[in-house]
Amino acid sequence: MSPVVGSAFFLFYLLALCNASGADIALDAKATLLHRIDSLNLLIYTCLLTLTVLTIWVFKHRRVSWLHETGLAVIYGLIVGAIIRYASSTNQVTYIDAHPAPDTKYNLSVPPDILRFRFPDKIQISSGDTVPNKTYAYSFRGEIVNLEQNEIDLKATFDPEIFFNIILPPIIFHAGYCLKRKYFFRNLGAILTFAMVGTALSALVIGALMYGFVQLMPASLASSFTFLDTLYFGALISPTDPLTVLAIFSQLKVDVNLYAMIFGESVLNDAVALVLSGAIQNYEKRYSVDGGFEITAFLAAIGDFIGIFSLSLLVGALLGCFTALMTKFTHVRDWPLLESALFVLMSYAAFLIAEVFELTGVVAVLFCGICQAHYTYNNLSSDSRNRTKQLFELLNFLAENFIFTYIGVSMFTFPKHHFDPWFIIAGFLTSTLGRAVNIYPLSFLLNLGRKPPIPMNFQHMLFFSGLRGAMSFALAIRNTVSEARQAMLTTTSLIVIATVVLQGGAATHALAYLRIPTGQGQNDENEALPYRDVRSETPRSGEAGEKARLARLWGALDSRLLKPLLTHARPPLTETLPGFLSPLARILTTTRQYTQADNSLRRTDSDSDLCLDEPQPVPTSIDPQLSFSLRNGYGNV
Amino acid sequence: MSPVVGSAFFLFYLLALCNASGADIALDAKATLLHRIDSLNLLIYTCLLTLTVLTIWVFKHRRVSWLHETGLAVIYGLIVGAIIRYASSTNQVTYIDAHPAPDTKYNLSVPPDILRFRFPDKIQISSGDTVPNKTYAYSFRGEIVNLEQNEIDLKATFDPEIFFNIILPPIIFHAGYCLKRKYFFRNLGAILTFAMVGTALSALVIGALMYGFVQLMPASLASSFTFLDTLYFGALISPTDPLTVLAIFSQLKVDVNLYAMIFGESVLNDAVALVLSGAIQNYEKRYSVDGGFEITAFLAAIGDFIGIFSLSLLVGALLGCFTALMTKFTHVRDWPLLESALFVLMSYAAFLIAEVFELTGVVAVLFCGICQAHYTYNNLSSDSRNRTKQLFELLNFLAENFIFTYIGVSMFTFPKHHFDPWFIIAGFLTSTLGRAVNIYPLSFLLNLGRKPPIPMNFQHMLFFSGLRGAMSFALAIRNTVSEARQAMLTTTSLIVIATVVLQGGAATHALAYLRIPTGQGQNDENEALPYRDVRSETPRSGEAGEKARLARLWGALDSRLLKPLLTHARPPLTETLPGFLSPLARILTTTRQYTQADNSLRRTDSDSDLCLDEPQPVPTSIDPQLSFSLRNGYGNV
Repeated sequence: MSPVVGSAFFLFYLLALCNASGADIALDAKATLLHRIDSLNLLIYTCLLTLTVLTIWVFKHRRVSWLHETGLAVIYGLIVGAIIRYASSTNQVTYIDAHPAPDTKYNLSVPPDILRFRFPDKIQISSGDTVPNKTYAYSFRGEIVNLEQNEIDLKATFDPEIFFNIILPPIIFHAGYCLKRKYFFRNLGAILTFAMVGTALSALVIGALMYGFVQLMPASLASSFTFLDTLYFGALISPTDPLTVLAIFSQLKVDVNLYAMIFGESVLNDAVALVLSGAIQNYEKRYSVDGGFEITAFLAAIGDFIGIFSLSLLVGALLGCFTALMTKFTHVRDWPLLESALFVLMSYAAFLIAEVFELTGVVAVLFCGICQAHYTYNNLSSDSRNRTKQLFELLNFLAENFIFTYIGVSMFTFPKHHFDPWFIIAGFLTSTLGRAVNIYPLSFLLNLGRKPPIPMNFQHMLFFSGLRGAMSFALAIRNTVSEARQAMLTTTSLIVIATVVLQGGAATHALAYLRIPTGQGQNDENEALPYRDVRSETPRSGEAGEKARLARLWGALDSRLLKPLLTHARPPLTETLPGFLSPLARILTTTRQYTQADNSLRRTDSDSDLCLDEPQPVPTSIDPQLSFSLRNGYGNV
Repeated sequence: MSPVVGSAFFLFYLLALCNASGADIALDAKATLLHRIDSLNLLIYTCLLTLTVLTIWVFKHRRVSWLHETGLAVIYGLIVGAIIRYASSTNQVTYIDAHPAPDTKYNLSVPPDILRFRFPDKIQISSGDTVPNKTYAYSFRGEIVNLEQNEIDLKATFDPEIFFNIILPPIIFHAGYCLKRKYFFRNLGAILTFAMVGTALSALVIGALMYGFVQLMPASLASSFTFLDTLYFGALISPTDPLTVLAIFSQLKVDVNLYAMIFGESVLNDAVALVLSGAIQNYEKRYSVDGGFEITAFLAAIGDFIGIFSLSLLVGALLGCFTALMTKFTHVRDWPLLESALFVLMSYAAFLIAEVFELTGVVAVLFCGICQAHYTYNNLSSDSRNRTKQLFELLNFLAENFIFTYIGVSMFTFPKHHFDPWFIIAGFLTSTLGRAVNIYPLSFLLNLGRKPPIPMNFQHMLFFSGLRGAMSFALAIRNTVSEARQAMLTTTSLIVIATVVLQGGAATHALAYLRIPTGQGQNDENEALPYRDVRSETPRSGEAGEKARLARLWGALDSRLLKPLLTHARPPLTETLPGFLSPLARILTTTRQYTQADNSLRRTDSDSDLCLDEPQPVPTSIDPQLSFSLRNGYGNV
């Protein structure tokens, strides 16, 4: 991926979002194409590396010595390079001269990609220097909105696309990979309600209220905001960031169900907000020049939302399952480094494939992470389990801290801030209200059907945990082309800073004030650590009734079909599939699955406890090195 | 770092290298400045993250709960952002209009950074489309050499700067981090001779021979190569890549001294070649318009080389020692994640600091890696030891395979190849000769003073191991602005491909043919694995005499001053420093150093064996998990 293309894409993209005209739409289509080509390029290399890893494994397995891995990588590269060169069409890059001859005609409806600038042709040079007579290339960067302002100032700022393609994927993957799936599935109904319905509701309420506020403001500002703009603001400010609160929860060993709800919701609502904001932008692009409201367009946007979300989910889940199959049916686990590399490559491929098909990579990588943890993790060698966990833990830690540092620095150095006190005050008020609308009415509705209802102090804590973070900031900084968007960025940055510093700091006191039980027993200590060994989870028998119906349904499919198919877990498919499928079942069952005792299976299977309620023994075989590192693990989720 | 600035820098840079004129030199100075600003930006964030990590540690240590890590990161960011905003001057970005009014005057001696292009102003549009009347920004990309060719084609290609700033640092750091220091220091004389003298000699011989060859070629090509061009080619084709050969050596358990020589040489000669090529470029830039040869300029280039190399070495070593001090005197090891993050950040900071001060980041990161392994590693918690090793092993594996895949793909897709059969044949011949000139005469000289001489079959194997790899390719693709440079890229790519595929494939047979001893005993198995536990190294007593004099000198300083100062190793400084320094020595000695028994110390100290020749017991405390993973570790260095 050329960074130049990347940033050109970004600027093309920004351009296309407001005041859509024919040329803007053409630019946008071109930008989307460029972004897809970028993702495709990365995907090509990811696939090549995957292929190399697999072939190295085969060579090692069969003791081939006449060709080595680097030779292999080179040869695969040559083959693919030749295919790209001779099979695909060239990208059309348009060139024009900056100072064309008077009678030149160009067939252009959009600005060209490259300007050829003959220096110092037609430029009157006042200095006495000798100047070379050369031709230089200038590439497209974007529209200049304010001719007076020096908009391109590069002090300690980064291309916003970096957040989406490099910083967010490891954070989101890590969230999926260390999701406590047992409690997640137990509270699935509540989590889905808060994350899907709640986020949409919050976006709508914030959007509507902000539109009202904006109308009361000075005319200059009011006219620059459409309803879709404020709705977009609602979508970007709605997702919550679990970071600070959950780190404190871990330290204080807070109730696991509350932990699961807050973590599950905040993981999912990042994905929901991203798809939602995309749908709002599509709506804006396709149907609206004046930002009005049309019912068919609205329904199309909802269709967009559902389609993109579920397809992205599917891509991620399929890649995860595919990795599980590869690690189950090959002996790549004999070479842990190859296995870990395969794991990382396949997970990043999920992100890239989604982006290539204009889906949402973040959603794909989240569900890929969940599947990798649920299935692939069981097939990995202990070395790879450690390595992948530690790798993503470290990447996540660095990426998160980078993003929060950047939020602070960019408050002063990013050139496109717009401080509007009224908009900022309105932003703080409505985002608080939006969170309340998400939690309290939905908790009330959920409690109508929920066995152990969500107690009032939990609801208050859910409300209080509504810190805004990385996703809101990334969405806000992606688009700063108009004054309205710049005011949104400033407000979002301030809300993130205030909630993270103040609410994050006060979380311990809030827990005490709300009398939320902390300091749960020995087993829950493991629970509260992000990298506790899932095998050692000991469900309390009193919780049997809490399980959600959704979880039961899913659990049956999972334990009878998916787990036996994708992992070495028992019972094997030969026992769970109907008789007429037994030849197929035999093929898909490994020797290890047959020979494994039920007991040992439960120890190695990280998630058999999903639907089992009887207590399990803490394994005695746990490696002291590992358990030491777990105990000292830094409690950052 | 904005990628746009990055690529602008690169193109500025290319420009400045040939046909230096006043404007080119101004462009080059500007480009260097931009690159330094980029590195400085990255360094700011690296330092901020380091500060955050340290403060988190202090907060955890003192159980501060009113402010959390994310809050901290934001607050540090705000402070630094404010400083950057109000304390530094603005970057001057020059703007001009693409179609200026006829009487406009600009005071420019270099092409401007941004062209403002009013579309469709002065462009005759032949299509009937309505076209928006907007102003767009176009940013500087570089000189257009061939107006007919469509030079900007972005199919599956990357900005070459990515190799230097992202792909190479982890490879080189890993090489330093897993260097077998005992055998490295034993063969230090030979390694330094081959790497420093040998590489320079090889570059000179290849440069001179190629210049001769080029003069015999058709006039068009001959005139486009200066002597400095061919010398630059010599410098870039001289470094060898250890990858393939060493992986085979690991599998076959080849003699450890041969292994150390090949590995040590190839690690160092990458650094030497990089600094050498930089010195050649500086020479070209400063003193030469016609590529002639001036003696003062030549001496200045040698001064450049020595100065840059030693300062870069110093930066890397200091950062490594600083990390060692931090991990020794704080209790950050109680939180392994923080410790690992600190380790990674400090190591990358070494690279960035060197780049900010116009030194060579690659050299800094190499010596930083060696110091981290030699000192810091001993202070780390076992969790961090594992994590950092596994992290860099994986990064190294992915980066190396990516680079070789890219070499293959770019052979077909990179638009700036120039196939010249004569130059290619001459390149193959001279690079083989250059390797021979490096090995045989220098081995002869070394054997005059060396206790156990380098046997002839080892010399043949050293010659045969001269595969070319990542560094040659990265240097070649960095500069493709002239036809000469393009011919160099093509030849370099072909040499890399041929040596990696053919020589790499034939290495096993070469070992057998040359009767080099393989399959050494149990202890040497650990030796041959890149991540064997250094504690279990058992030096054979027969090797006592082999130690180089350099190693003895260094060993004394190391074991009496540096190790006691930087690690928990015994004897403590209170025993090794003269009496009048004892108050200082007491401050710098930890309780652990006093209380530790001599015996346990030798086990935990990874490099006390550097100058100890008596056999050490293989520790019984070695964790089975770790030793399993080591035994199954994938033998890729």
